[in-house]
Amino acid sequence: MKPFMDKDFILNTETAKELFHETAAKMPIIDYHCHIEAKEIAEDRRFDNIAQVWLGGDHYKWRAMRICGTPERCVTGDASDYEKWLAFCTAAPKMIGSPLYHWAHLELQRYFGITDTLSEDTAEKIWNECNEQLKTLTVRKMIEKSNVEIICTTNDPVEMLPYHKEIAKDTSFKTKVFPAFRPDKAVNIDKAGFADYINSLAEVWGKKIECFADVKSAIVSRIEYFAENGCRAADHGLDYVPFKLLEDADLDVAFKKAMKGETLAQCEIDGYKTALIACCAAEYAKREWVMELHYGVIRNTNSAMFKRLGPDTGYDAVDQHLDAANLAYLLDLLISNDTLPRTVIFPIDPSHNTSVETICGAFQAEGIKGRVQQGAAWWFNDTKAGMEAQLKAFSDLSVLGCFIGMLTDSRSFLSYTRHEYFRRILCNYIGDLVENGEYPADMPRLKEIVADICCNNARNYFGWNK
Amino acid sequence: MKPFMDKDFILNTETAKELFHETAAKMPIIDYHCHIEAKEIAEDRRFDNIAQVWLGGDHYKWRAMRICGTPERCVTGDASDYEKWLAFCTAAPKMIGSPLYHWAHLELQRYFGITDTLSEDTAEKIWNECNEQLKTLTVRKMIEKSNVEIICTTNDPVEMLPYHKEIAKDTSFKTKVFPAFRPDKAVNIDKAGFADYINSLAEVWGKKIECFADVKSAIVSRIEYFAENGCRAADHGLDYVPFKLLEDADLDVAFKKAMKGETLAQCEIDGYKTALIACCAAEYAKREWVMELHYGVIRNTNSAMFKRLGPDTGYDAVDQHLDAANLAYLLDLLISNDTLPRTVIFPIDPSHNTSVETICGAFQAEGIKGRVQQGAAWWFNDTKAGMEAQLKAFSDLSVLGCFIGMLTDSRSFLSYTRHEYFRRILCNYIGDLVENGEYPADMPRLKEIVADICCNNARNYFGWNK
Amino acid sequence: MKPFMDKDFILNTETAKELFHETAAKMPIIDYHCHIEAKEIAEDRRFDNIAQVWLGGDHYKWRAMRICGTPERCVTGDASDYEKWLAFCTAAPKMIGSPLYHWAHLELQRYFGITDTLSEDTAEKIWNECNEQLKTLTVRKMIEKSNVEIICTTNDPVEMLPYHKEIAKDTSFKTKVFPAFRPDKAVNIDKAGFADYINSLAEVWGKKIECFADVKSAIVSRIEYFAENGCRAADHGLDYVPFKLLEDADLDVAFKKAMKGETLAQCEIDGYKTALIACCAAEYAKREWVMELHYGVIRNTNSAMFKRLGPDTGYDAVDQHLDAANLAYLLDLLISNDTLPRTVIFPIDPSHNTSVETICGAFQAEGIKGRVQQGAAWWFNDTKAGMEAQLKAFSDLSVLGCFIGMLTDSRSFLSYTRHEYFRRILCNYIGDLVENGEYPADMPRLKEIVADICCNNARNYFGWNK
Repeated sequence: MKPFMDKDFILNTETAKELFHETAAKMPIIDYHCHIEAKEIAEDRRFDNIAQVWLGGDHYKWRAMRICGTPERCVTGDASDYEKWLAFCTAAPKMIGSPLYHWAHLELQRYFGITDTLSEDTAEKIWNECNEQLKTLTVRKMIEKSNVEIICTTNDPVEMLPYHKEIAKDTSFKTKVFPAFRPDKAVNIDKAGFADYINSLAEVWGKKIECFADVKSAIVSRIEYFAENGCRAADHGLDYVPFKLLEDADLDVAFKKAMKGETLAQCEIDGYKTALIACCAAEYAKREWVMELHYGVIRNTNSAMFKRLGPDTGYDAVDQHLDAANLAYLLDLLISNDTLPRTVIFPIDPSHNTSVETICGAFQAEGIKGRVQQGAAWWFNDTKAGMEAQLKAFSDLSVLGCFIGMLTDSRSFLSYTRHEYFRRILCNYIGDLVENGEYPADMPRLKEIVADICCNNARNYFGWNK
Repeated sequence: MKPFMDKDFILNTETAKELFHETAAKMPIIDYHCHIEAKEIAEDRRFDNIAQVWLGGDHYKWRAMRICGTPERCVTGDASDYEKWLAFCTAAPKMIGSPLYHWAHLELQRYFGITDTLSEDTAEKIWNECNEQLKTLTVRKMIEKSNVEIICTTNDPVEMLPYHKEIAKDTSFKTKVFPAFRPDKAVNIDKAGFADYINSLAEVWGKKIECFADVKSAIVSRIEYFAENGCRAADHGLDYVPFKLLEDADLDVAFKKAMKGETLAQCEIDGYKTALIACCAAEYAKREWVMELHYGVIRNTNSAMFKRLGPDTGYDAVDQHLDAANLAYLLDLLISNDTLPRTVIFPIDPSHNTSVETICGAFQAEGIKGRVQQGAAWWFNDTKAGMEAQLKAFSDLSVLGCFIGMLTDSRSFLSYTRHEYFRRILCNYIGDLVENGEYPADMPRLKEIVADICCNNARNYFGWNK
Repeated sequence: MKPFMDKDFILNTETAKELFHETAAKMPIIDYHCHIEAKEIAEDRRFDNIAQVWLGGDHYKWRAMRICGTPERCVTGDASDYEKWLAFCTAAPKMIGSPLYHWAHLELQRYFGITDTLSEDTAEKIWNECNEQLKTLTVRKMIEKSNVEIICTTNDPVEMLPYHKEIAKDTSFKTKVFPAFRPDKAVNIDKAGFADYINSLAEVWGKKIECFADVKSAIVSRIEYFAENGCRAADHGLDYVPFKLLEDADLDVAFKKAMKGETLAQCEIDGYKTALIACCAAEYAKREWVMELHYGVIRNTNSAMFKRLGPDTGYDAVDQHLDAANLAYLLDLLISNDTLPRTVIFPIDPSHNTSVETICGAFQAEGIKGRVQQGAAWWFNDTKAGMEAQLKAFSDLSVLGCFIGMLTDSRSFLSYTRHEYFRRILCNYIGDLVENGEYPADMPRLKEIVADICCNNARNYFGWNK
C-alpha cells in the first residue's frame, strides 16, 4: 500500500517517478489562464485566515459543502470564518475520490508543510497552524513558492489594467503578470446588461457605438490597448459554439434591436456572435495571440440562488449540446479568410473529446506545433480521470508532444498545485506507456516531451520565448 | 491468477477485502426500487424449476439468447422449460465479460451453493440440483436469505395494494414491503390507452375526471392512499425529460384533446407532462417522499416483436437525446416553488453522467445529504464498467459519501446478488483509492463510508430511520 | 519494465500470452472491409521506397505530420520522397501513446524485421534497409506474409471489376479478393456530382434512368453483377443515419429535382436515402450478403484544403449527432418487411457505443450469431483505448463470443498488422478477465472464443465457410 499522498503520489512506476522528480517538478509554471485579481498581486494581499483563502471564492468547495447538507450560512453566509472552516473540514472525509480532496491536501502540504488529513478532528489544529503562517505567507510569496513564470489574468475589454502596469514596473517581483482579453460581454448580445455594457465600452473607447462596425472598431482599439500591456491571450466563454453568417446590414439590425432592449431571433444572436468572434480572431491572428474557446456550460441553473448570490457561485453545470459542426464551420471560416489564430478549444462535456480532437487536426499550420488544439481537461473535468481521458484522446487523435499543457483556471492563489497534480498525472501516464512496452525507455527523449508539455510548448505557442 | 468467482471476487486489494467482508457483506439490503410482485411474496410463491425463476421474465437473458441465434421458441415460446434452460446454458459460455454471466453464477453460488460453471455440459446437473432445492426455497426464503430489510415494489396509482396490506399484517415476515408510486400512465398523454387509463383512475377516485385539475386531484388522492400504505418513494419512467410551461387553460385543452383521441402538438404533450410531474413532485415534497426519475430509453424498437410479445420483452434500447437543459429547468421550477423533493436521477446514456452530476449539485438542501443525486448505474449500465463509471463520476463531481447506493430494478427474487455485485465493486473502488495513496487508510472512517453507501444513507434519505 | 514492443507487446498476463501465441497469431486474416486497389494486387505492384508505401495515401500520418507543423510540401507536396520520409521520422517520437506509433513499428518489425525506433536519427538507416527489401517485397508477398485468406475491396456499383476477375483466374495466388458493393454516390442525392453519377450508372446499366424505380433497377442489376463476381458484402458510408418514409411519387419528384440540379428539402433527401438503402438492404438480405453501415463523420472540414487536395486527405472529423432513433426505425422498417440482412454498424462517436449495442440486440435472427452487431472500433477509434471500449461495450451489452472481429479499413498493404494489434488487445482483454477471476481458466473454451472472434465468426457470418 502506498502512503497517503506522499512524494510519489500518483506516480506508480519508476519511470513516472524519475520523469516527475527530475524534470516536471522543476519546470516553472506558465499559468496562461486564470481568474485571480492583479490587484491582489500588486498589493501583495495578506489573508487573515485559511478560510478566507480557501472558502472566500471557491465554488468547487461550496458545491461539495452544500451536497453534504451544510447550511448556506456556513457556506457563503454570515457564519464566522471558523464556523465555515469547521463545516468544510467536517464534510471533507466524505469527499473520497474527489479532486477537491487531493487539491486541498496538496495545498496544505506545499504551502504550509502540513501533512495531517482534513476532518472535524484536525480542523482546529490546522486552522491555527495555517493562520500563523499566513501572517507572512502573502500572495506574492505563494506565487514565488510555486515557481510561476507567467500569469495571465482574465480581463474585460473596458479594464484599464492599472495593476498590471504597476506590477510590470516593479522589478523586485520576477513573475510576469499579463492581462488576457475576455470580450464575452460584448459578444453576448442575448444576455441582460448588453446595452449598458456597450455604453461602458463606448466610454472607454471615447466614441459613440451606433452600429456593428463601431462595435468592431471599439473592440479592436481595446485589443490594441491590451497588446500594449503585454497581452497575448484572449478567452471566449461560450455557452455553445455559434455559427451563422449574416450580412452587415442584418448585423446592424440585430445590434440596434439589442440596444433598444428588443428580443432577437436566434439567427440574429448567432449571426452577431459569429461575426464578432470572427472579427476578434482576425485581430488575434494578426498579433499572433492565442484564442481560447471555452464552451458547453449551462450557467446559473438555480435561479433563486442566482438572485441571492449572483454568478460563479456554484450553480453552473455541464450542458449537453451538439457543437462539432459549428466548431468546424467556424474554424473553416477563419482559415478560409487566413485569419485563424492559434486556438485552444476547451469543451466541457468529455464526450466531446473525440470530435474536438479530430476537428483540431484539420486546421493546422506550417511551423506551429498544434496550431489548433484541445486544451487541458477543463473545470468539472480537471480530475484525475478527466485529465487521463484528455491525455488519452490527445495521444490517440493528435500528437501528445505538441500539447501546451495545464492552466489553473482558478480564483485562488494556492491553486498552482493543480499544475503539480496535472504533472503527476502526465508523468504517470507516460510512465505506464513506457513500462508497458508501448514507448521506448529513452529517458532524454521522454524528459524533453515532459518539459515541453509542462512548460516549453506553452512558452513557444504564446510567443513568450522571444 | 485469481480463482473464478471465489469469496474475493472483484476484491483486488486487502483494503477492499476487509471493507467488503467486515462491513459491506453484513449490511442489510434496502431495495428501494424493483419490479417484483407483492402478490408472490404474500403467497410465498414456489417455483417448479430453475428455468421458471431465471427465464420466466428476464429480458436481459432473452436478449443474450437471441444474440446467440437461439430460436424464439426456446426463449419465450412453447419449448419445454428444460429446453429453454439448456438453450441458455449452451449460450452462457459465449457471454464472457458480461454482467449476466456474473449474476447467474452469483445466484447459483448464493442461493443454491453451486459453484459449477454454466455450459451445455453442466446444464442437466445444475437443473437437477436447483430444482431439488426449489422445493423448499420459496420467495420469502430467498428474501430472508438475502438479508433484505426493505423492498419497494412498483405500483400504478389505481392499484388497491391488497398484498401489501396482507404482508404488513403478517408479523412472521420481517422484511418490510412497501409500494412505490408510478404514475407513468397518467403522465403519458401521448401514448395509446391514455383515455382508458384516465377512466380507470376516475373509477378508483370515485369521481369524473373532466379537466386537468381533476387529474391532479385524482392523483393526489392516490398519493394519499399510497402514503397510508407506507409508500415513501415515487418513480417516473420518462423517455426523455420534458419541459414546457403552459397555462391551465391550455392544459385543459390538451387533456380534452387526448381524451377524445385527437393528436396533440409536441408543446401540448410536454406542457401536460411538465405540469403533472410538477404537481406530483410538490405532493412528494410535502410528504418527504423520494422522487426517482428514470429517463432515456427508446421503447419497443422492434414493432413486430412488440405486437407478438408486448412490452418489457427485451426490445428496448438506449436513446441518444439532449436532456440537460430541460432537467435543469425542471429542477429549477420545483426549487423556485419550494416543491423540490429528494430526487434521484437515473440517466441511461452513460455520456450523461457528467452533466447530470453537475446539475444535481446545484439543487441541494440544508440538512439533507445529496438531496438531488444521480442514482446507481441503471439497467444496461449496471455492469462492472458502468458502475465504476458512475462511482467515478459521483466521486469527481459530487460527494461519494452522500450516495444512497444500489437498487435491483429487477423482476427476479434472486437479483439481490446485484447488491453484492455493487458492494464488491464499491469496496474494490475504495480499496484502490486507499492502496494508491489517494485516501488515508483510516479503516473506521472507510467502514462508515461503506456502511453509509450500502445502507444507512438510503435509510436516512427515505426516512426509514425514524 | 516490459521491453519496447517485443513478442509480448500488449500481452500482460500469462493467459493473454498463451491465447495470442497459440491461437490468435495463427489464425488467417479475413479482411472484410478495406480500401486497397485490386489493380495493385493483380499487377503485384512493387514500391520504389518506404515513403511510397507509408506516406503515399495514409491520411492518418499526414494529419500527425501537420499537427507537428510539417510544411504541406513535405506531406503531400513536391518534396522528394526522402524529405517526406525524414519529416515523418522527425515527427514520430512526439507521437507517444498514438496507435500510429505502434502501427508503424509493427510494420517495420513484421515486414522488414527492423526493431529500431523511428526518429530523425534512424531515418536514413531504416530508409535504406526498407528500400533494399522492397525490391522483392511486392504487394502479393506482403499479403502472403500476413496470412490473409480473404480481402474485400471497396467498389462503386459502376465498376466492371476487371482486376477481381483477373485475380480470381490466377490459381497461383491463394488469397481470395472479392469486391464489396459501395453505392454511396447513388445514395447521396444531396452531394455535388449526383446527376453525373446517375448518368454513368445508366450507362453501365444500359438503360435510361428517369425515375426512382429506374435507380432501383439499375442498382439491383449491379448488385447482381457484383454477386456474380463473388461479392458478399456491401458498405454504406453515411454522414448520419437518415430515416424518412416518402411515397413513391414524392421519391420521383425528389429524384427529378436532383437530376435538374435543384435544391431538395431535407425530408426529400432523407426520404430518398431511406428508400434506396431499404431497397439495397432487401437485395442484400435475399443474397445473404452483409450490410455494413459506417456513420457519423463530417467530411472535408477544411474547405481550402479540400479544393487543393480533394477528399480523404486528412480533413474529416467525428461529428456529434443523435442517430439512435433513426437507426432503430431503419432496422425496424427492414425487419418488418422481412428484408433485414446481416448488418454491422460502425458508429464513429464512441459515446454511441452504448446505444448502438442495445439497438443491435433488438434485431436478431434465429440461427445467426449476432445478426445485427456493432463493428470493430472504427477509424479514429481503432486505437488501444478505442478497441478496449468497443470490446467492453460488446461484452456488457451484447455477447462477445458472437463478434465478427477486426477489419483494416485501410489503403495500405502493410496494414494487416492492425489485425495483430486488435488480436493482442483482444487476448489481453480476455486474459485480464480470466486472471481477475471473472471467467473460468478453461483454455479450450477460451481458445475457441478467440479463434471465433479472430476468424471463424466472420467466415460463417459472410458465408465463406460454405
